[in-house]
Amino acid sequence: MGKVGVVMGSRSDLPVVQKALEVLHSYGIEYEVRVLSAHRCPEQASRFAASAREGGFSVLIAAAGMAAHLAGALAANTTLPVIGIPCSAKNLDGLDALLSTVMMPSGVPVATVAVDGAKNAALLAVEILALSDPVLADKLQTEKDAAREAVLKTDAELQAQLSELQS
Amino acid sequence: MGKVGVVMGSRSDLPVVQKALEVLHSYGIEYEVRVLSAHRCPEQASRFAASAREGGFSVLIAAAGMAAHLAGALAANTTLPVIGIPCSAKNLDGLDALLSTVMMPSGVPVATVAVDGAKNAALLAVEILALSDPVLADKLQTEKDAAREAVLKTDAELQAQLSELQS
Amino acid sequence: MGKVGVVMGSRSDLPVVQKALEVLHSYGIEYEVRVLSAHRCPEQASRFAASAREGGFSVLIAAAGMAAHLAGALAANTTLPVIGIPCSAKNLDGLDALLSTVMMPSGVPVATVAVDGAKNAALLAVEILALSDPVLADKLQTEKDAAREAVLKTDAELQAQLSELQS
Amino acid sequence: MGKVGVVMGSRSDLPVVQKALEVLHSYGIEYEVRVLSAHRCPEQASRFAASAREGGFSVLIAAAGMAAHLAGALAANTTLPVIGIPCSAKNLDGLDALLSTVMMPSGVPVATVAVDGAKNAALLAVEILALSDPVLADKLQTEKDAAREAVLKTDAELQAQLSELQS
Amino acid sequence: MGKVGVVMGSRSDLPVVQKALEVLHSYGIEYEVRVLSAHRCPEQASRFAASAREGGFSVLIAAAGMAAHLAGALAANTTLPVIGIPCSAKNLDGLDALLSTVMMPSGVPVATVAVDGAKNAALLAVEILALSDPVLADKLQTEKDAAREAVLKTDAELQAQLSELQS
Amino acid sequence: MGKVGVVMGSRSDLPVVQKALEVLHSYGIEYEVRVLSAHRCPEQASRFAASAREGGFSVLIAAAGMAAHLAGALAANTTLPVIGIPCSAKNLDGLDALLSTVMMPSGVPVATVAVDGAKNAALLAVEILALSDPVLADKLQTEKDAAREAVLKTDAELQAQLSELQS
Amino acid sequence: MGKVGVVMGSRSDLPVVQKALEVLHSYGIEYEVRVLSAHRCPEQASRFAASAREGGFSVLIAAAGMAAHLAGALAANTTLPVIGIPCSAKNLDGLDALLSTVMMPSGVPVATVAVDGAKNAALLAVEILALSDPVLADKLQTEKDAAREAVLKTDAELQAQLSELQS
Amino acid sequence: MGKVGVVMGSRSDLPVVQKALEVLHSYGIEYEVRVLSAHRCPEQASRFAASAREGGFSVLIAAAGMAAHLAGALAANTTLPVIGIPCSAKNLDGLDALLSTVMMPSGVPVATVAVDGAKNAALLAVEILALSDPVLADKLQTEKDAAREAVLKTDAELQAQLSELQS
Repeated sequence: MGKVGVVMGSRSDLPVVQKALEVLHSYGIEYEVRVLSAHRCPEQASRFAASAREGGFSVLIAAAGMAAHLAGALAANTTLPVIGIPCSAKNLDGLDALLSTVMMPSGVPVATVAVDGAKNAALLAVEILALSDPVLADKLQTEKDAAREAVLKTDAELQAQLSELQS
Repeated sequence: MGKVGVVMGSRSDLPVVQKALEVLHSYGIEYEVRVLSAHRCPEQASRFAASAREGGFSVLIAAAGMAAHLAGALAANTTLPVIGIPCSAKNLDGLDALLSTVMMPSGVPVATVAVDGAKNAALLAVEILALSDPVLADKLQTEKDAAREAVLKTDAELQAQLSELQS
Repeated sequence: MGKVGVVMGSRSDLPVVQKALEVLHSYGIEYEVRVLSAHRCPEQASRFAASAREGGFSVLIAAAGMAAHLAGALAANTTLPVIGIPCSAKNLDGLDALLSTVMMPSGVPVATVAVDGAKNAALLAVEILALSDPVLADKLQTEKDAAREAVLKTDAELQAQLSELQS
Repeated sequence: MGKVGVVMGSRSDLPVVQKALEVLHSYGIEYEVRVLSAHRCPEQASRFAASAREGGFSVLIAAAGMAAHLAGALAANTTLPVIGIPCSAKNLDGLDALLSTVMMPSGVPVATVAVDGAKNAALLAVEILALSDPVLADKLQTEKDAAREAVLKTDAELQAQLSELQS
Repeated sequence: MGKVGVVMGSRSDLPVVQKALEVLHSYGIEYEVRVLSAHRCPEQASRFAASAREGGFSVLIAAAGMAAHLAGALAANTTLPVIGIPCSAKNLDGLDALLSTVMMPSGVPVATVAVDGAKNAALLAVEILALSDPVLADKLQTEKDAAREAVLKTDAELQAQLSELQS
Repeated sequence: MGKVGVVMGSRSDLPVVQKALEVLHSYGIEYEVRVLSAHRCPEQASRFAASAREGGFSVLIAAAGMAAHLAGALAANTTLPVIGIPCSAKNLDGLDALLSTVMMPSGVPVATVAVDGAKNAALLAVEILALSDPVLADKLQTEKDAAREAVLKTDAELQAQLSELQS
Repeated sequence: MGKVGVVMGSRSDLPVVQKALEVLHSYGIEYEVRVLSAHRCPEQASRFAASAREGGFSVLIAAAGMAAHLAGALAANTTLPVIGIPCSAKNLDGLDALLSTVMMPSGVPVATVAVDGAKNAALLAVEILALSDPVLADKLQTEKDAAREAVLKTDAELQAQLSELQS
Repeated sequence: MGKVGVVMGSRSDLPVVQKALEVLHSYGIEYEVRVLSAHRCPEQASRFAASAREGGFSVLIAAAGMAAHLAGALAANTTLPVIGIPCSAKNLDGLDALLSTVMMPSGVPVATVAVDGAKNAALLAVEILALSDPVLADKLQTEKDAAREAVLKTDAELQAQLSELQS
């Protein structure tokens, strides 16, 4: 099973990206974190993507804001699946980053998640890796079941609370 | 290597979805096409997703318009990677479908591509399948190289044309 | 007269939903509150909706944010009227939830209210129930009259204040 | 069982509204169609809403475009459920009508459906009327079942076609 | 010279409206302030507008948020010029109020100013009244000249400050 | 009673502006039509506005598309009421022109009407002129009454048609 | 005086770009036209930009649609001024391209013009080149004067036409 | 090498503009700062632009919010390159200013940067001036190299930190 490369365009994206790292960690996925800007060090970003497959990566995750080109720049240089996280910035609530990440032209796909949706980006990477790792697939299902049970427990608790209040 | 399930919410989405099928076909990927609506036959859609892994699917692609819940409804019922294609409709240019598909809450990722971006959805599926299929990976790279060469050839032709005009 | 089912996609929606509960309570409407996610426990959400009519419910209210599928998922499984409350989240001011809730395809209606418009969702439920309950209809009219009088009183007070200031 | 009042702001909205009338007709619902503008004949629109309950109406449907005030103007004058259809116009794809119809202030709900979503508006009205009419409720379920079967049939046909093509 | 009627849909709009009152006061314009909701007391709002001309009003200003129908509701009932102030609310930054106020159908104009643009609403009213009051027209020009001089003074001061810093 | 100056930023705006001219003509208002661009002949546009009052104008109407500065540029140079018509262009449905026209800073109001709302711009001008011309005011009311009667007649006709169809 | 490099992401952008070429031609500016995609041949695009200054270019113009990264990708590899033309595509009216082009992070500017604004992109390039070429500067002023005169002539003609009609 | 004129529409734009001044200062560019409003002192703004070339300016930068006409008003009066900074205000996140600045009609270009993108506006000015100043061009490249190295250093540090945490 390959590694996940998690790339952010600027260190200021780390608080968002952190949630992806926690998910990858909890699933025991090997990952590397990079700060590589499509605009400030384009050659290094391109080279990272171009050599990612032979470097042992299976999936790349890219987080960037505003005119967020990072995911697209990686996808231009690799045939590995690239997942894009559009990050919100001071203005426009991440709509600029969302459109810059998702509206890719034919031939160069980016798998885009919600604005600031780092946790889902990591889960998507795990889902992809789990295709060749039954243990991982089982763990995903276990977590999904747990998430369901957590909602059902919250549901039961809320009903209990409210019926107390009403009685 | 597993199959790709291509689900559309309505038969009217077929012209968009067709481009995904062509890509899958050209890569020799086995796929099944389904018309399953998250709103008109939710149980069948859920069941399809819930049994997709054991049914031999590796990746699901979902195409839907307006309040496009299909990709999310599949993702709610499987831990396979789900790719969402937001389809444009009569009004709003697909912005409604885009937001309905991409803004998924934590825990249930959908890999979203551009509005009407069926070709990229298929390519993303191929990229995922190629992780465990070196031949497919090679073919992806070959096609990527060919796409590059096509642009460079267009570039050369255009320059030739224009220099003729200018001379 | 049937009960109202008030479903929220996550416990974090409770502060918004609370305003709906207060309205239902003030009208003496029986209601049940549930936390059921279209994405985290889709089967339970579907089953709740599918059995809602025989369970004694007359109207369902669903509150959810982002790619808000909850109201649509309930509507897909019942022919009871379903009222959707799009909830605002960290980004996009609820526009994503609004479009995800209101832009339903033909055949599966959701009665959508304003972003975070929980009070109106409850009032709409009361209006529906009042069709077969003249006492409730009278109370709605009384409250509507009271709301009018409250505005007129505010109007009178403000005019008094301002004329004091001007004199 | 009361009548449904279907009001449009201008005769030019009739092509959209027509789909609502067909649904109401198919369910055997008695309805009246009115052309009443919140801006051009506000008094008549108000009076229509204010006397709608005693006039035998149970639900009102209002279709209007641009700064679509009609549904809100009716809702201001009645405690009957009011369903709003935002109509698209030459510019802005109905976004103006959607926001004008759905973003109602607390106390005056409008049950809003999709832009140009006349069919769903009618179905919502039928769902409301069906609460006190088991035959109507059965028919709604029958139609919902038929819609599901239609999708499943399309699904089967498409699969047959495609497997022929593939074999 | 007639009075200006300043109407707000809710007392909570007073902080915005206050800036209009200050402008009217500074120009010595007689005004009346009303709290009249198009949705909560539609009849009173309509009657106010319908009798405004004979009541001595020359211009009406209406401030409201969300699905802001107030200006349109007044304009429907008078041929006096009606100025609309779209007010921002918790969500959507006033875009809903702007479109609800400005996108009026043919025949019922509303003179719309910027979101929360109360000061300009008042100035517009003064400009209208000044057409038949040369003293008011002179004062408008004097204030416009003063505004220009204030900018030019700020310009001079800033240049002085910066040249000190640079020297 | 003064003239109305109708200014368009480009001759291509004439089809929109034409509707304003017809209204002004039908009310017997004297008007002058100008093609003056805030960007292509800024000095002439400024001078036109600066001398408009002494040139016998009472109201200015400005129609422009895209980054529509014309109305604001006129308003910057006169204290006459300036009415802005945002014109739709090839892209963005006039949203750019709407925001460029309506979001004016404090001190320089523009009375903005709907995108392409030329008829209402003219009516607003007539309403302003009618403040000092009782005959014009009467005619406005007569036309408003006629518009109401036209809707009511359409309403009656439609009801007649439909009841024939239903019987 | 250096050359202008005009790059388009796809040959399908040529009809838009053509207008830029005509302007450059009319000013006698030497230019080269390239088809280079930031996504399909990123290395060539980067190399073109990285060597542009020594290759004798002074200004680069980049035209692209959707998630338009081309201008940003060039700007990442050169310190020459880069002008971006956001191109409209099938959906979203170019808003995606506009935000992808203009919302660049600090340090990597792109001089963005209007959606499909190729003519202005070329004029901006000419303005830049004219800083070191007084003849070019004179020609720009001459053309600007001619554009003004053309508007004024149109203005005069329209006034003549209309006064004929009115007399 | 000419001066850069930095114009803001209001002194309240200074905090945004300040970042542009720092860049210009760091590059040793001579600049003048002006507060000149297209709406409050249009004549002075026009005159400033009209005489800018002979006044020794090479590039103008204009910062303004809301219906941001300043850049366009300057561009209307000069053939120097004009760079526009759309400033965000209380509502709409600068979208109004962005569209008002960038969507200029053919013939009058404004080089628009990101909302509040003052630093990039200044860099763009430096890039333009550097075309005739090799020292400046070198310094731009040096700074670009330094920005790249800063990212790469951050990248190295983050990797070191994380590998410590992981070991």
